[in-house]
Amino acid sequence: MKWIRFDRSGVAGFGVLGEGEVIAVHSGDMFADAKPTGETVKLGDVKVLAPTVPTKMVALWNNFHALAAKLGNPVPPEPLYFLKGNNSFAAANETIRKPAAYDGKVIFEGELGVVIGRRAAAVSEADAPGCIFGYTIINDVTAVDILKKDPTFDQWTRAKSFDTFGPFGPVIATGVDPLAASVKVVLNDQERQNYPLGDLVFTPAQLVSRISHDMTLFPGDVIACGTSVGVGTMKPGSTVSVTIDGIGTLTNRYE
Amino acid sequence: MKWIRFDRSGVAGFGVLGEGEVIAVHSGDMFADAKPTGETVKLGDVKVLAPTVPTKMVALWNNFHALAAKLGNPVPPEPLYFLKGNNSFAAANETIRKPAAYDGKVIFEGELGVVIGRRAAAVSEADAPGCIFGYTIINDVTAVDILKKDPTFDQWTRAKSFDTFGPFGPVIATGVDPLAASVKVVLNDQERQNYPLGDLVFTPAQLVSRISHDMTLFPGDVIACGTSVGVGTMKPGSTVSVTIDGIGTLTNRYE
Repeated sequence: MKWIRFDRSGVAGFGVLGEGEVIAVHSGDMFADAKPTGETVKLGDVKVLAPTVPTKMVALWNNFHALAAKLGNPVPPEPLYFLKGNNSFAAANETIRKPAAYDGKVIFEGELGVVIGRRAAAVSEADAPGCIFGYTIINDVTAVDILKKDPTFDQWTRAKSFDTFGPFGPVIATGVDPLAASVKVVLNDQERQNYPLGDLVFTPAQLVSRISHDMTLFPGDVIACGTSVGVGTMKPGSTVSVTIDGIGTLTNRYE
Repeated sequence: MKWIRFDRSGVAGFGVLGEGEVIAVHSGDMFADAKPTGETVKLGDVKVLAPTVPTKMVALWNNFHALAAKLGNPVPPEPLYFLKGNNSFAAANETIRKPAAYDGKVIFEGELGVVIGRRAAAVSEADAPGCIFGYTIINDVTAVDILKKDPTFDQWTRAKSFDTFGPFGPVIATGVDPLAASVKVVLNDQERQNYPLGDLVFTPAQLVSRISHDMTLFPGDVIACGTSVGVGTMKPGSTVSVTIDGIGTLTNRYE
């Protein structure tokens, strides 16, 4: 199923996106007791929202073998992560805004997102899949010149948390196995990333288990699995689409 | 005024803490249109909650001249910060829990917290004070052996975001000037930190202005101003109290 959140006349709702771009509206809690109201609404008649309101987005660094090899980074013995600020979250089709106070390079990073469905605290790898609600698509936008700008302190949070730098969606797909799929990024009609999720260093279940030993994960929280080879610069006016088969396509314009 | 949030029989409320440890209960939005209900409740009859539910806590590194000098770090030209995970937030008197999966050193860091009262996006330094609601007290608890454990990636978020590693409160004090005060930390009846807030590299107004050019700050968000000299290890069974005159004392046990 493909869960989607939307805004209709200023009121947020959610439901299941089905054939013919029709949403079966649901009520209750998406992660607990969602029930169809019987009402339907056309996708074209609503504004798509980010598919969840996470309490946090945990974002991985160096989590693909191919990119680690290319950059000469060792494969990490445990997940290495930072947080993207909640202010950075944006929806599919929402414009990613160039920061007024920054004139350096801004890059796209197409990523798989793991959406938590059940509170996870110190869960085993065997129990972790039961805490995963589904999967979404993320563009982990990065003001890359800020990252290593200060020699004493790498600025992961700042470089990746400008407003609108964390678009994700448009849906959360449940009942899919993303490890067989690839992440494809098209920048202005040119394919720039196309990497297999089977190359992950830490799988979604391993990430949920290990991170949950550090931080309790809550329903709606998102883990951005990190990116692989092919990231590149967006210029104002660019359109970036990230596609994962079985989930969908996240498209955003950069201005 | 000293604003406080509390739990009474499972229901969250808030109000103004006055003489004799009596809370004047308020309704509405603490940051917008709070009005006294006329009801009062004794502090001893409720459970104190963290005084706000931030969408994010932005935490400064290297923001005091004395500590920078002691550690041989250059005074930074701009604020250097990370995010503490929202899962780390805890209230005054709540127990800070030793992570089960970590046996290294855990340290206390007494800090001033700036609480945002009005949405701040790209505000000037002159306008920043109008976006500050008041000030609170933070213990920026850190699993310090994790910070530099991986030679390729400093783990600020992970080291500082274990559950309960971000206690703050007990109140938000409004109408005070913290720059004339000091931060005092007592570990098991021994004073361990006592540093003047006048030694800040970036003042609260400068922090709000500069950070708001990167990330929009929302009412209830907190900026942890960083710590200075004297941080030290907490052992299970330790009690840590952080006092800032004009705000109050934040006490937590570590187990």
